[in-house]
Amino acid sequence: MRNILIIGAGRSATSLIQYILDKSEEQDLLVTIGDISIQNAKRLAGGHPNAEAYVLDIHNDQDRRNAIKDSDIVISMLPARYHIEVARDCLEFGKNLVTASYVSDEMQSLHRKVEAKGLVFMNEIGVDPGIDHMSAMQVIDRIRDGGGKMLMFESFTGGLVAPESDDNLWNYKFTWNPRNVVLAGQGGAAEFIQEGTYKYIPYHRLFRRTEFLEIEGYGRFEAYANRNSLKYRKIYGLEDILTLYRGTIRRVGFSKAWNIFVQLGMTDDSYIIPNSEELSYRQFVNLFLPYSPTDSVELKLRHNLKIDQDDLMWDKLVELDIFNKQKKIGIKEATPAMALQKILMDKWTLKEHEKDMIVMYHKFGYELEGKKKQIDSYMVIKGEDQTYTAMAKTVGLPVAIAALKILNGEITTPGVLRPIAKEIYEPILKELEEHGVTFNEHFADYLGYNPEGVGG
Amino acid sequence: MRNILIIGAGRSATSLIQYILDKSEEQDLLVTIGDISIQNAKRLAGGHPNAEAYVLDIHNDQDRRNAIKDSDIVISMLPARYHIEVARDCLEFGKNLVTASYVSDEMQSLHRKVEAKGLVFMNEIGVDPGIDHMSAMQVIDRIRDGGGKMLMFESFTGGLVAPESDDNLWNYKFTWNPRNVVLAGQGGAAEFIQEGTYKYIPYHRLFRRTEFLEIEGYGRFEAYANRNSLKYRKIYGLEDILTLYRGTIRRVGFSKAWNIFVQLGMTDDSYIIPNSEELSYRQFVNLFLPYSPTDSVELKLRHNLKIDQDDLMWDKLVELDIFNKQKKIGIKEATPAMALQKILMDKWTLKEHEKDMIVMYHKFGYELEGKKKQIDSYMVIKGEDQTYTAMAKTVGLPVAIAALKILNGEITTPGVLRPIAKEIYEPILKELEEHGVTFNEHFADYLGYNPEGVGG
Repeated sequence: MRNILIIGAGRSATSLIQYILDKSEEQDLLVTIGDISIQNAKRLAGGHPNAEAYVLDIHNDQDRRNAIKDSDIVISMLPARYHIEVARDCLEFGKNLVTASYVSDEMQSLHRKVEAKGLVFMNEIGVDPGIDHMSAMQVIDRIRDGGGKMLMFESFTGGLVAPESDDNLWNYKFTWNPRNVVLAGQGGAAEFIQEGTYKYIPYHRLFRRTEFLEIEGYGRFEAYANRNSLKYRKIYGLEDILTLYRGTIRRVGFSKAWNIFVQLGMTDDSYIIPNSEELSYRQFVNLFLPYSPTDSVELKLRHNLKIDQDDLMWDKLVELDIFNKQKKIGIKEATPAMALQKILMDKWTLKEHEKDMIVMYHKFGYELEGKKKQIDSYMVIKGEDQTYTAMAKTVGLPVAIAALKILNGEITTPGVLRPIAKEIYEPILKELEEHGVTFNEHFADYLGYNPEGVGG
Repeated sequence: MRNILIIGAGRSATSLIQYILDKSEEQDLLVTIGDISIQNAKRLAGGHPNAEAYVLDIHNDQDRRNAIKDSDIVISMLPARYHIEVARDCLEFGKNLVTASYVSDEMQSLHRKVEAKGLVFMNEIGVDPGIDHMSAMQVIDRIRDGGGKMLMFESFTGGLVAPESDDNLWNYKFTWNPRNVVLAGQGGAAEFIQEGTYKYIPYHRLFRRTEFLEIEGYGRFEAYANRNSLKYRKIYGLEDILTLYRGTIRRVGFSKAWNIFVQLGMTDDSYIIPNSEELSYRQFVNLFLPYSPTDSVELKLRHNLKIDQDDLMWDKLVELDIFNKQKKIGIKEATPAMALQKILMDKWTLKEHEKDMIVMYHKFGYELEGKKKQIDSYMVIKGEDQTYTAMAKTVGLPVAIAALKILNGEITTPGVLRPIAKEIYEPILKELEEHGVTFNEHFADYLGYNPEGVGG
């Protein structure tokens, strides 16, 4: 039997492990699941005869190296910062590796050695990054193979709550790491290019410069800019493209209300609030407003951010109960971001029966035979429940499919890779389709940014 | 003759050196002026018989150590980050040291050794920090010695243009390092305490939460919060004070207009603009606005920041010529902050005959015999010209006075110090008065933040 080692049996590994176990008989696979928590590992092994669950502390060099040495291929589902240790062992023992995370500089630096040993280290093969790369490159290659010239590429992804489980005014619940949602967009200005002009949006303006997207059957969404769109010029081979923009999808109205937290300074993670544990939600809000012995926190907030009496944003704040005098932050040495996360988790945590939803939307503008054309391509995937979420499915399936194809010698190009070559994305996208991961395409003339030819 | 070594003969050293040279005959002083530029050193030595100007590169360990070894006291007017090297040599060779800079962690870590050797390392003895410490502690000590209990301390300083040289709509010119002005307030939220409540202002709101100050004969000013007011609780021994706030003074209206640059992201110093050298001022502004093939940069800016047609902020922008299509940034690999500084320096550079002005304003609230009182204390100092500026005078005189008093054994408390003890500030403030550095005081009842007793 061939031994597939899966390190990390967290929430994102459910669909991945299910897929591999389903194939284990026919493919003669032993599935070894190592996690710091034996409960996690056992739960995902599910008593399957071809599965083996055990405790693996990746900080224990001996145990980690032994596990990797005994395997035929390694899948790392660890937090991104831990992949590099695993990668170094894989290189030493000559094992292929699959991860769903962004290629770090450290990982990239192994490329020549990995290539020289004929190994495949496949990264960024989850949903975002992952399915976005593959589905985009498939269309881009098709356009270019047909003689077209790419003018514009815009790509948007969002992890949202499915409509049937959507019951709050924000039309949002946490379907992934809440901390990442609270900190999203921080660390520098968002950079992109539109019609050949560089554009920069500072963090404090990010949630006020959104654009709308429409998906048949699902209605309207909005998107705010991701931090670095420009690096995709090189990765996708779009060096001279005029417009390149990547963004994050939310339901309409989310960003305008989220901007209140940004403006007040509540998403700051750089300092600790004195006595944060005992602070009420109301006192937390008041930290960010001018002192007044007489005016209410509510009126100070409305006045400070010029929120009209009938603005629906206000109801969103009230729904979160941020003016409550009794509820306490309850976290020692909390930063503002940690305190805000606590308040949001009260209301935005998915219940056991509730479903998440992944939305991805690409726009491709190109010129073919003197005519400007546009293809819009989108995907909507809903989760089944809180175990087999859309996130787990869209992250895990491409990882699992890639791992088996590498194990079976169907993907062989060596090096530290992303799934952007046709030999990789074609078979994987084909198999994803069988699992319901499909894109709809719409064709139109490319209108660019000046559809009416107005102005001057 | 006693040898006073002055390292660094930049613009802030003029009044300092003049003061010491004026005393050199009577006090039997040799004034050794070392600078990386011999022109700088010679210019400030001015051919005085007791002055010696020479090239000193402080990165040359041998030269620096020899200079310090040969001196009787060292004054470092270098940029703050270079003091530590000088301080280590002073410690080794048993020399006293004076600087006008904030005590760094590295400097503070020398305290025990400096104390053990009986040396005086006097820091923060310029204007801000410096005169602010001394003038504030004098009043605070007076209040406490008289049995009063401190309730509130607010302190504001600004380097401005003198009214007679004030000829632009911003009522502002650069009188100090322009880069520090452009970056002011960055690096984290401003923290302070008001009536016992902690308050935080994120950078992007800093210039919209100002307060007004009125000075007889000079009219109205405004102030925005400095980053860290809270550390002064410990330094001034005001651990249980209810209100502590430090701020920077500008003329009224400056902050509201400056906020436009902050909002757009033009003060960001964290990334480089592609092809910055060739960018016109207009193109620079357009980097921060949405793309449009038809709308003007002007209208996009007005719309984006909701600037009314008759808002005077607009004239401030026009005065800076930021919409000019011909003028180029002209700096390679410029960050937005560097590009903005270039644009501002076109208009905000003081001409040779123009004068600067330093404004300092303290408010002390206290309780005495059951009654709440307030003292307002302020200082306005104008420069003579572009050599003997108010900045050079207010930074240099306290440094010079302190250095002579240490040399003459009038200040002896050893350690890494700030001028907050009475034995230090009393004689220095007294001598500063003779040079026109005086404070006006106004007495009133302390009204606090609820003067009318309104609300509920």
